[in-house]
Amino acid sequence: MERSNMQQLMDKILSGDRRAFAQGISVIEDRRKGWQELLNEAYKNMNDHALIIGITGPGGAGKSTLTDKIITEYRKMDKKVGVIAVDPSSPFSGGAVLGDRVRMGAHSTDSNVFIRSLGSRGCIGGISEGTKRVLYLFKTFDFDVIIVESLGVGQDETEITNFVDVTLVALVPGFGDSIQMAKAGIQEIGDIFIVNKSDHPDAELFTNQLRFSFGDIPLGERPPIINTVASDGKGLDELMDAIASVVPKEYARREEKARRRINIEIESEILEKMMDITKGIVSKKAELVFYTKNKITPYDVAADIIEGISFHEE
Amino acid sequence: MERSNMQQLMDKILSGDRRAFAQGISVIEDRRKGWQELLNEAYKNMNDHALIIGITGPGGAGKSTLTDKIITEYRKMDKKVGVIAVDPSSPFSGGAVLGDRVRMGAHSTDSNVFIRSLGSRGCIGGISEGTKRVLYLFKTFDFDVIIVESLGVGQDETEITNFVDVTLVALVPGFGDSIQMAKAGIQEIGDIFIVNKSDHPDAELFTNQLRFSFGDIPLGERPPIINTVASDGKGLDELMDAIASVVPKEYARREEKARRRINIEIESEILEKMMDITKGIVSKKAELVFYTKNKITPYDVAADIIEGISFHEE
Repeated sequence: MERSNMQQLMDKILSGDRRAFAQGISVIEDRRKGWQELLNEAYKNMNDHALIIGITGPGGAGKSTLTDKIITEYRKMDKKVGVIAVDPSSPFSGGAVLGDRVRMGAHSTDSNVFIRSLGSRGCIGGISEGTKRVLYLFKTFDFDVIIVESLGVGQDETEITNFVDVTLVALVPGFGDSIQMAKAGIQEIGDIFIVNKSDHPDAELFTNQLRFSFGDIPLGERPPIINTVASDGKGLDELMDAIASVVPKEYARREEKARRRINIEIESEILEKMMDITKGIVSKKAELVFYTKNKITPYDVAADIIEGISFHEE
Repeated sequence: MERSNMQQLMDKILSGDRRAFAQGISVIEDRRKGWQELLNEAYKNMNDHALIIGITGPGGAGKSTLTDKIITEYRKMDKKVGVIAVDPSSPFSGGAVLGDRVRMGAHSTDSNVFIRSLGSRGCIGGISEGTKRVLYLFKTFDFDVIIVESLGVGQDETEITNFVDVTLVALVPGFGDSIQMAKAGIQEIGDIFIVNKSDHPDAELFTNQLRFSFGDIPLGERPPIINTVASDGKGLDELMDAIASVVPKEYARREEKARRRINIEIESEILEKMMDITKGIVSKKAELVFYTKNKITPYDVAADIIEGISFHEE
């Protein structure tokens, strides 16, 4: 049987064809014709070769600069690096976004670095559907290291930890404290905390507050805190050491994370389909709620619809 | 037939019993026994009397101070005001959070003001399930104005607009630009934009950038931008005028928003139940994906499960 277009594209990607890889990412990101088949192929062909590093934190924490410097460190070790970066497609300042791109562009002539920016729609807070899917494709392309940047000011914070081996949380002292403050539970997601811009006058105070917030975690299990000034490379050696030191522990969790990812994927597929299936009846019943002036509630209606759903296991 | 406990609680709430109201909120927020019945009762008994104002924006924009001042303005008009505030339950700084509470507490002896802080878990970015549900209960308690504060740095930004009449977006110049920058689509959600802390040196530049970002919106439909220094009350009169001026237009959209809310409620109920129904089979099939080393993919498995779901309309 002849191989389909998407299978052929997958073959090229597996052979290391950079253009085919870039094209494949676009197919999946833009949901072009055949994207689901390509995703399925990617899923079957991905490998566990790469160390996957997630870097998250509020805007302004210097994630792009940190990513740039981490790439440089891995290139010194002759590692092949892939990066999925966030592109906020800002309405406020195209300039600043472009600035990020240009900065990362320092590596763009290096054939052992592949950087792809994805739109942040549905991405702010955790990791978007698009990022996950593109990450599966990255895992077929034989990188040594894959860096996934995400804008971590959201409700699905913890989800990213299931998709990466090591989660770096980048914070900055002084500015945006209130943002960081809002991030209850942040201790649970970070394997390593970075206090960037640590030349800031409030850096020591902030680092202490952060350390204090780990008080409930048993000694010996507390995540390392690394002080960096990413823009001039300060603290990068310490950061790379910290990453290397947590890798064995995190690799031991790969199976558990793989299982969780599979569950997440199946569930979100089912939910998406259920939305399609019930769309018509939901709209119709919504009218009923509206016209009875809520005497029949959405909860009544939902219970009715659910009663009409039956499920048999094959 | 005797009225159930929850029906009795609802009766008390409808009679204006403040303690019963506070208790009802806790029942729904903490999902105590009977919460679904109470929610259903609230849904049936809510009215459209109150003007509902949403206030969103990044942390540090001064939302609590603005809310406090808006309460004061409405109290001058002898309006009964309810507030659902965000309590980030911070791991970093209990002090600052307490500060917010104390500030709001200035109104706590006023029997015509009712302020309730809800945890922000699952709330950052848009409006949480808990907030929505509690809002339905607020709509039974005969407020003239209900203010819903939300931490708007998330993916479900636009959802809040369906639950309130007027959406205020609070921003600040200078600090956290990058956060604001990330908020693509922010123009679509705000009925009124507030540039708070407008005594900041970059305020004029920032206001101009913001105005410029409205370039694609037809003249006459662009949302007003109000400059405030909430902490000393500057700009509050202009803000109150702006709110009054957009109310008629926004009230005209109430039906459309009510329909959308009903749809959202039915869908989320169905999805939650579907998760329960398919939980067992999903876990089982996830193992299959895991042990075949992804040769069978989550997408294959989801398709199988969906095939086993049938749906009949009664």
